[in-house]
Order: sequence, then structure tokens, then C-alpha cells
Amino acid sequence: MRDVAIIGVGMNKWGELWQKSLRDIFVESALLAIQDAGVDRIDSMYVGCMTSGLFIGQEHLSSLLADYLGVGSIPSVRVESACASGGLAVRMGFMDVASGMSDIVLVGGVEKMTDVSGDGATYALSTAADQEYEVYHGITFPGLYALMARNHMDRYGTTREQLAQVAVKNHENGSKNPLAQFPHKITAEQVINSIMVADPLTILDCSPITDGAACAVLCPATMAEKISKKPPVKIIGTGNATDTIALHSRSDLTTLNATVKAAERAYQMAGVKPDDIDLAEVHDCFTIAEIIITEDLGFFKKGEGGKAVERGLTALEGQKPINTSGGLKSKGHPVGATGVAQVVEVVHQLRGEAEKRQVKDAKIGLTQNMGGSGGSAVVHIMQKM
Amino acid sequence: MRDVAIIGVGMNKWGELWQKSLRDIFVESALLAIQDAGVDRIDSMYVGCMTSGLFIGQEHLSSLLADYLGVGSIPSVRVESACASGGLAVRMGFMDVASGMSDIVLVGGVEKMTDVSGDGATYALSTAADQEYEVYHGITFPGLYALMARNHMDRYGTTREQLAQVAVKNHENGSKNPLAQFPHKITAEQVINSIMVADPLTILDCSPITDGAACAVLCPATMAEKISKKPPVKIIGTGNATDTIALHSRSDLTTLNATVKAAERAYQMAGVKPDDIDLAEVHDCFTIAEIIITEDLGFFKKGEGGKAVERGLTALEGQKPINTSGGLKSKGHPVGATGVAQVVEVVHQLRGEAEKRQVKDAKIGLTQNMGGSGGSAVVHIMQKM
Repeated sequence: MRDVAIIGVGMNKWGELWQKSLRDIFVESALLAIQDAGVDRIDSMYVGCMTSGLFIGQEHLSSLLADYLGVGSIPSVRVESACASGGLAVRMGFMDVASGMSDIVLVGGVEKMTDVSGDGATYALSTAADQEYEVYHGITFPGLYALMARNHMDRYGTTREQLAQVAVKNHENGSKNPLAQFPHKITAEQVINSIMVADPLTILDCSPITDGAACAVLCPATMAEKISKKPPVKIIGTGNATDTIALHSRSDLTTLNATVKAAERAYQMAGVKPDDIDLAEVHDCFTIAEIIITEDLGFFKKGEGGKAVERGLTALEGQKPINTSGGLKSKGHPVGATGVAQVVEVVHQLRGEAEKRQVKDAKIGLTQNMGGSGGSAVVHIMQKM
Repeated sequence: MRDVAIIGVGMNKWGELWQKSLRDIFVESALLAIQDAGVDRIDSMYVGCMTSGLFIGQEHLSSLLADYLGVGSIPSVRVESACASGGLAVRMGFMDVASGMSDIVLVGGVEKMTDVSGDGATYALSTAADQEYEVYHGITFPGLYALMARNHMDRYGTTREQLAQVAVKNHENGSKNPLAQFPHKITAEQVINSIMVADPLTILDCSPITDGAACAVLCPATMAEKISKKPPVKIIGTGNATDTIALHSRSDLTTLNATVKAAERAYQMAGVKPDDIDLAEVHDCFTIAEIIITEDLGFFKKGEGGKAVERGLTALEGQKPINTSGGLKSKGHPVGATGVAQVVEVVHQLRGEAEKRQVKDAKIGLTQNMGGSGGSAVVHIMQKM
């Protein structure tokens, strides 16, 4: 296998983009990534998108987006693994370059969620859960994550305040990210007193509905050294894993097995340990998710994730900065785009381009992207070349 | 890159399967393929599915199907390129094995179309076209292919009778396939006199709505020689290409550019020419499609596809047997499964297991799978090892 590097990244300003369609925001982000990479061709492309069929009545994004990007007749693939679709697109692009089949590969993610048709966004998102055994009985994602939160609180003494601190920290980071959907600071009091969605999770514990896209350009590491205008970033580890799709099938609701396995595979491939990671972008679709994930990635002992955020260990200036971009919570969560946007942030950090969010001396970064209530997960580890 | 072989194939009996859900038919087919291969583990899996979100309100098949197949926490990916989703799943599995990332890979396709929720099957399928510029104005797939048919008839003198002969031939072949949805012979008179859908295409020019799945097991060719119970089949060429998603953006409606390009890439990789192909499974979603595709694959000169079927050249005993399985027309067209089922048929033919449909001395077979009105295409070339 060839070593693979990231030589360009780009994303549009996320938000409620009523004036732009899915194809517009994808092309905008793709052109930014291509310009950042300074390449004049793309050999193949991978697009992560969860459910453009239910959101906007459009499948076949492989053809649509290659067409609108004007890249001719290149091979093009859409991948889907619910909210882990973007991470999988990065992984497929990695494999394409590593195998030797393609040299310059565009990977991207996109979701257009606000002008939803049909049965609405909650229904569209619920298709990431087990429809026959979960959703038909009335539960949706805030409810599923609330079950995990209650379990974690009961078993480990995680507090309501600690959950809120995840949102506070991520909004603090997001306030320094001009591309974030909600670049506003919030307080723990505001989180706790906002509208209840699924006890204990209020609306400010939940990531928002977002229109957005993010892209990156990959190529062989040897080629990156020659053609890259900016410091290239090497993908040193990739891991993908699955778990039961339904929460009720799991023996433990306080750990996310797919994340544990995907991380194990990525750490092994990269030859690094959790302690070696300088910063990480993780899938904080709900505040409880970030707490569980930071434990499952091995950053903190099981049950210590809530205390870690409370003590500021995961803040920008902490020992293990988490979600410096603002995370899904503040930056936004256009589901298919999220996994690629995590990579965009890590590349900016490793290049030293993260401005007010810059983590000092960042050399190794990790992304963790997951689908549904954790039924799938993708982990990537990247290093400055 | 490592050479890749197919060591097992399986598919369920296709049809209107009211008693079985998507997960049931996928697992049924996957277990048949795993049994056929004689393996006791799967390292990763790829599933092609077009729009389970719109058909049954279920995305996240990567997790759902790995879960129900009981293969633990393995990496799992769902790919989508409209009706070419199955072909892409095979291509991704090929890349995974070729790259050295995985050894034993399950590739499959599935679609559960009959018990459709929401706005119905025609709407769900229309999401493979350009929603904003085609579908919102009222056209659906029979109409798009009818435009191609009229253009081909006007330019090359292709006749209504020749279109009907494609359906007659494929039902003749399908009558010998016990897994086909409609294993019944039909006459040209029946085709021409059946209900008009979009002039000149009647309902018997159109492939049906089908529930079905198909799977294959891939591994490195060197491993196949050691572990395969049955004669392994090598994938010697793979090609994927895209075209404009909308028909009105093309300069010529009588050729499918993505198919031309995907075939060029596959022929080049395999080092073979159209004349070397002993049999092919092609994407006869409508009768006109088979005529255009057999020209675009280089089997016949442009404009000669209609005459070729009329002369029996594409029949089971002809010089270039096309769709020996019955094709989409008679075997059925569960959209995401079709591309994998084409590979299942070619493997059976190359192994000499196709019983009443067996093509004599078949050594090299080709599959051509496409999405929408040809906006994407995947071509594979396989050879007996």
C-alpha cells in the first residue's frame, strides 16, 4: 500500500442556507479544497451523504456532483453510513490512493437538511436507527442518547452540569471559527434551562440541523512532497467498525463498541497510543456522546469523561483539546459532511492555520465520526509530514 | 495491487416478497454466497443499495446488515450510485482486496421495493434523475428512456419490433432461471400490445419492481487457489465512469457516455477487446437500453444493436449471448442488487454451472451496470482462472 497525504481542504460557511442547493454547497467546498491543493485535475471522487433522498428527493450524487463540479467522466462514488458517511468517504479515498488505482482523489461530504421535503428532518434522521425495532415504537435520536446519558449518570456519577460543560466548551471554540453555524458563546445555565428535548438532554445539548459541505484532496505521500503548496498531512491510521444498529441489543449503554474497535484499528495501523494524540475532533451529536467517546478513544478512563470536561482537560488550552472547531454542537452537523469537516479542522491545526483556535505544537490529530447511536464509526489519525 | 478472485456467489429467489424484510433477503443471499465460498470469516463488507431510505425508511445499512449477518464489528460500507449501486459495491470490494487492506470481503446488493412507504416507487426511483431540472417538470424514467428510444429509431431506423425482441429474448433466457421474478416466455406481439407507458415503450419493455438481493465473496487470487472449493473467477478489469445526470445536458441521446468510458477503462485494465467477451450481462432497465449498451460496449457498430437482437446474435446460442440470466427484464430489477446479480450470473457461466442457460466454452464474461439515465456506469470483466 502507498502512503497517503492530504494536500488540500475546504468547507463553506455552514448554516441555514436557503439560497443554495445541495449541489451549490458541495461545489463551493470542493473548489476551495482543489484551490487549496493547487491541483488541476481530479482522478476520482467519493462523496459522503446520509439521506439526500429523504431530505431533498435526490439520490445518485455520484453523477450529480461530478457533473456539477465539471470533472468530466471520472469514477465517482457516494458512500453512506448515516452520520459517519463523511468519515467513510475519507476512508474510501484513502483506499483508492493506497491501492494505486488513483492518484489525486477528492473526498467530500454534504447534507442539505433545512428545506426538507416529506416527513421532516426528525423522520429522515431516524432512518439511521433500527426502523423496525426502534423507530416504529416512537423513539428518535435525542431519546436514544438520553438513555445513554441516564445510564452513564447512574453508573459513573456524571452530572447534568458536566453534560452542559461540553456544550459550553464547544461553543467557546466555535466562537473562534468563522465557518461555524452558531459561533456564539453560551453558559451552562443557558444549556440547563433551555427547552427539554429528552430528559436529561435539552435543546442546547443537541447538535443542530445544518446545510453544509466539506472536502479534502488526497494523493500519494511521495507526490504530496513534490506538488503540495502547503505542508502536507499524512493519514497514518484508518479504522472502521460496526456495532448493533439497535441500542437494545447492546450489553452496555455507556460504551460505544464500534468507536472502541475503529480506534483500536487506527491506533494499531498508525503505531501510536491515545497519549500521542495532540488534539481530536469527535462526534458530539449530543453532549453525552463526547463524554463517552473521549473515554472510548482511551483519552480518559471509563467514567472519567464528565470530570475531564469539568476540569478543563478538553478545552483549547487543556491537555487534550477536543473539538477545537466547535464540534457538531457549535459548528453544525450537516450529517454527511461532518466526518470530512473534522478532517478539515485537523489539517488546519497540523498546518498551524487554525488562527484563534490554534493548538500549540500540534503534530498528531485524530478524528472520530459515527453513525446512528454508534452502530458504525470511522477513526482517522493524521500526522504532519 | 493484488489480483482479486471471486470464490462464492449467492442470491435469493427474486419477486414480490411480502413475507420478508430487506434484512432477511440480504442475509439469505449473503449466507448462500458464504456457503458457496466455504469461508468461515468475513473481513469487511460492501453493500449496494439505491434508496432504502425512501423505500422502507431505513438508511445505515452498513451497521444493520453487518449486525443481522452476525459478522461482529467488521468494517462495513454502503455505496450508492442509483441502479449502479451493486456494481460499485463489487468495485469497492475489489479495491479493498487489491489494496491489501482486507483478505476476505463480502460484496452485496439489496433493494426492497414492493412495500414502499411515502410517495411510492416511481417517486423513489425518480431520485436517480436530476430532481431540480428533470423530475420537478414531470418526467420519470420510462419517459427519459422513451426519448432515447425515439432518437435511436429516428437516427438508425431501429424498429418497434426490435425493441420487443429484447424483451422476448430476455424472457426466453429468464424462463430457464429458477431465481427469476418472471420466468415466463413472452411474444413480441404481447410486448407491443401491452399497456403503453411512455411511447414507444409499453409495460413489457420495462423492467419490473422487485424485492431481491445478491452477494459475492472476494479474496486475493493467490488465496483463492488455496481455499476455493469451486473454480475461482478472476476480476481482470474494473471501470467506473460518470456522465451528466440530466439527459438534456448531453449532445447525443443515442449513446451512453459513462458506459463507453467505464468499458474503455475495464477493457484496458483487462487487456481484452469486445471480441474476446464470451457473454455479457447488461443493464436492460428498458429494452432500448440493451440495444444502446451493446453498441456502446463495442459488441456491435453504433446503430446496429437493434438488428443484432433481431438476427439472434445476442440469443443464448448466438455469437454474443447477452443477459443469459434473463436480465433486469425477466429476472427482475431490485435496483441496488442488480449489479451484483450480474456478477453472480457470469460466475455461474464461467464455472459451467448455468444449467439450461449455459453458454458453451465461456471463458471471459462482462457485466455492465448503470445508474439513472446513464449518469453513472460500472463495468467488470471476469475470467476463469
